[in-house]
Amino acid sequence: MTPSGIARETPEPPYYAVIFTSLRTEGERGYGRTADRMVELARAQQGFLGVESARGADGLGITVSYWTDEEAIRSWREHAEHKLAQETGKRVWYADYELRVARVERAYAKRT
Amino acid sequence: MTPSGIARETPEPPYYAVIFTSLRTEGERGYGRTADRMVELARAQQGFLGVESARGADGLGITVSYWTDEEAIRSWREHAEHKLAQETGKRVWYADYELRVARVERAYAKRT
Repeated sequence: MTPSGIARETPEPPYYAVIFTSLRTEGERGYGRTADRMVELARAQQGFLGVESARGADGLGITVSYWTDEEAIRSWREHAEHKLAQETGKRVWYADYELRVARVERAYAKRT
Repeated sequence: MTPSGIARETPEPPYYAVIFTSLRTEGERGYGRTADRMVELARAQQGFLGVESARGADGLGITVSYWTDEEAIRSWREHAEHKLAQETGKRVWYADYELRVARVERAYAKRT
């Protein structure tokens, strides 16, 4: 997957976060390629603010994407190519997942 | 670190999420032991709902903890042993981090 780093481009709150926590099934089955493509597509969406992604050795993955508002999240959810990826995710790539939509109210960065 | 899995014990929204994204410095320097201890302590806090944690091969770590309300988050932030860990985190363990406090408004799990 494309390394994402810490999302630094987010503005002063409020804005929105989509927290997607997942466990993968066994086998690659085209997952990495689609995941990269979804990040590329998301970046081009109106209202996209950034994304952070990590998957640990125990298989738990967390992806947090940041958006200006709920309308931007809704548009991304309904994007045709993204909808197809969501369906394949449910059927093939994810043994389990939980998705949470949250309104970011405060943010703090490390100050050195 | 203690494997955390997907946080399944969270109630119907609204509740709160603390999204902590970080990059580690080189070397272990007691990090894993303190991280485990902090999860153990957090679980004992009033208002704690769950935690999810992943660190990828590229070094980016994401930990999301869930709480009933802002008061529970404030109490945890001010916990004496946790404050000491926060200070050591800033000085020793984290090259960089960003912490976001967000109100979870909707949640969806995989339905099979």
